[in-house]
Amino acid sequence: MKAIRLHETGGPEKFVVEDIPKPAAAPGEIVVRVRFAALNHRDVFISQGLYPGIALPRTLGSDGAGEVAALGANVAGPPVGTPVVIDPTIGWGNDPEVWSAGATILGMPRDGTFAQYVAVPAENVHAKPAHLTYEAAAAMPLAGLTAYRATFTRGKLKSGESVLITGIGGGVQTFVLLYAKHMGARIAVTSGSDDKLARARALGADVAVNYATSPNWQKEVRSAFGSVDLAIDSAGGDAFAKALGLVRPGGRVVTYGGTSGDATIRMFPLFWNHLSVYGTSMGSPWDFRAMLALFESAGLQPVVDRVCSMDEVVEAARRMNQANQFGKIVLAID
Amino acid sequence: MKAIRLHETGGPEKFVVEDIPKPAAAPGEIVVRVRFAALNHRDVFISQGLYPGIALPRTLGSDGAGEVAALGANVAGPPVGTPVVIDPTIGWGNDPEVWSAGATILGMPRDGTFAQYVAVPAENVHAKPAHLTYEAAAAMPLAGLTAYRATFTRGKLKSGESVLITGIGGGVQTFVLLYAKHMGARIAVTSGSDDKLARARALGADVAVNYATSPNWQKEVRSAFGSVDLAIDSAGGDAFAKALGLVRPGGRVVTYGGTSGDATIRMFPLFWNHLSVYGTSMGSPWDFRAMLALFESAGLQPVVDRVCSMDEVVEAARRMNQANQFGKIVLAID
Repeated sequence: MKAIRLHETGGPEKFVVEDIPKPAAAPGEIVVRVRFAALNHRDVFISQGLYPGIALPRTLGSDGAGEVAALGANVAGPPVGTPVVIDPTIGWGNDPEVWSAGATILGMPRDGTFAQYVAVPAENVHAKPAHLTYEAAAAMPLAGLTAYRATFTRGKLKSGESVLITGIGGGVQTFVLLYAKHMGARIAVTSGSDDKLARARALGADVAVNYATSPNWQKEVRSAFGSVDLAIDSAGGDAFAKALGLVRPGGRVVTYGGTSGDATIRMFPLFWNHLSVYGTSMGSPWDFRAMLALFESAGLQPVVDRVCSMDEVVEAARRMNQANQFGKIVLAID
Repeated sequence: MKAIRLHETGGPEKFVVEDIPKPAAAPGEIVVRVRFAALNHRDVFISQGLYPGIALPRTLGSDGAGEVAALGANVAGPPVGTPVVIDPTIGWGNDPEVWSAGATILGMPRDGTFAQYVAVPAENVHAKPAHLTYEAAAAMPLAGLTAYRATFTRGKLKSGESVLITGIGGGVQTFVLLYAKHMGARIAVTSGSDDKLARARALGADVAVNYATSPNWQKEVRSAFGSVDLAIDSAGGDAFAKALGLVRPGGRVVTYGGTSGDATIRMFPLFWNHLSVYGTSMGSPWDFRAMLALFESAGLQPVVDRVCSMDEVVEAARRMNQANQFGKIVLAID
């Protein structure tokens, strides 16, 4: 079968398309014929060697949608040919509050979705929402799940609240925008790109501020928008500290990343205003099911930046590395 | 009546005992004959000018226990002579999650408990737990309430969990120790004083580490104790950052102060380990009632450092300013 493989680290240039054997379905597993996959920052970080526990060669890829191709022993269904989408969190465990120490993410250490076939635990395979194409379904899993847990399970967003989304454009934050809009939230977004701010406005953001041209962007958000009920951030550093300063008394801040490094925070507003800060990564099996139910009941559509062929993976990963995308970069697995 | 007054800032030396008129009970208020009061860091901070909105002269004091002396119009009870304790949070509001913008603390701007008589809103007056002396009851309100909300309402301490209490010795943290012990928690404490660590061990702390002689105290706690379910801190700065590094995946950190200043925190453990950080100040009326119920049902006794006379207030406040106390410093209001 065709697979996008990584034999050595060194950046997106190191992805190569090659032929490797099809995986077999071990007991308790399902093999999925992947039709579409999607890139995540994680794939780029791994290609750059910026991830713990890298063991190569490996087929990366956490997001995939396709059809059931084979069932392992002790797996009763779904039948071969069923359209499915894959939950990328492997072995979350039994605690809804936190993943187990042994939890991993599809695509490292286990071979992932950048291949015509992928073997995954049967419990990670879910029926594809009928209203989504395979392309759209493949754009959903990792980012949609992370955003679901950040917005609802941890962030506890309620109808009509106000939300600050820092650094709009990456996969997860566009899902947060989608969910927040669905909940009737008032939405403020930030980005370093006017194009992305315009895209976010088109998707329903009420206030959009460029942090590159406005270093004191928090003042613009405050004057245009007031304080917010919930802020969701994955930058850390200064952005996280500013987000903390923008939430109302009793408000919440959710963080799922720290690409800008450590954050220096003032203690007084945190304790005096009874703020809550929630860290989150990926999502539980219950989060994944709830996300699928939300997509189906609300008819939501993931934001897809573009669809590339397997042969275009190096260019696609470079685009993600440069943060030029808005929404998910999808790979057609032909 | 006799009252301890502050006419100007300049530190604990500025407290003076003088005669002022007794307060009257306005509609909706109760006048309490204070038998015992207790000092809080807040009183010292105000004497030093380190508090927002200071208006002098003023009778300070947030903690008090005594008897009902007079009822204002529209107040049905409790009868004159009833032994009572005062909830020091004035005007919390209707939201259990956070106090209202207009909430204040007894003793500034409103005249407080360092006087023979104090007038407070009727809803702030509660029956004194029968098993507590007036001295003990006066030691409880502000610190016991802050600790109750930190430990239970925000920290969600469950039976048999493990708790880290940084900087044991101050009023609030000794109540946290009391509550945690009552819940059957395993308890680690830190202090810069070996005497306080010994006192904490006598009260049930399992591990006690001196942060003054062990700058890497977090490593000692980790090796002696492992990671903790809940950490409660009021220092901020380095202590808060280290506490964040000591909680288990899915664990909680509560902060109710920042005397050591800003904290620089690593984002990765916060989001990867699904940690939660909860800020808290004082407590709601529901917290206060729940605290009283806990004291009564469990027969708890506040830790009293010493009982001083009104004339000894300067010395008592100096002792608190130098953080020499273990538990509450109580003032006999004769």
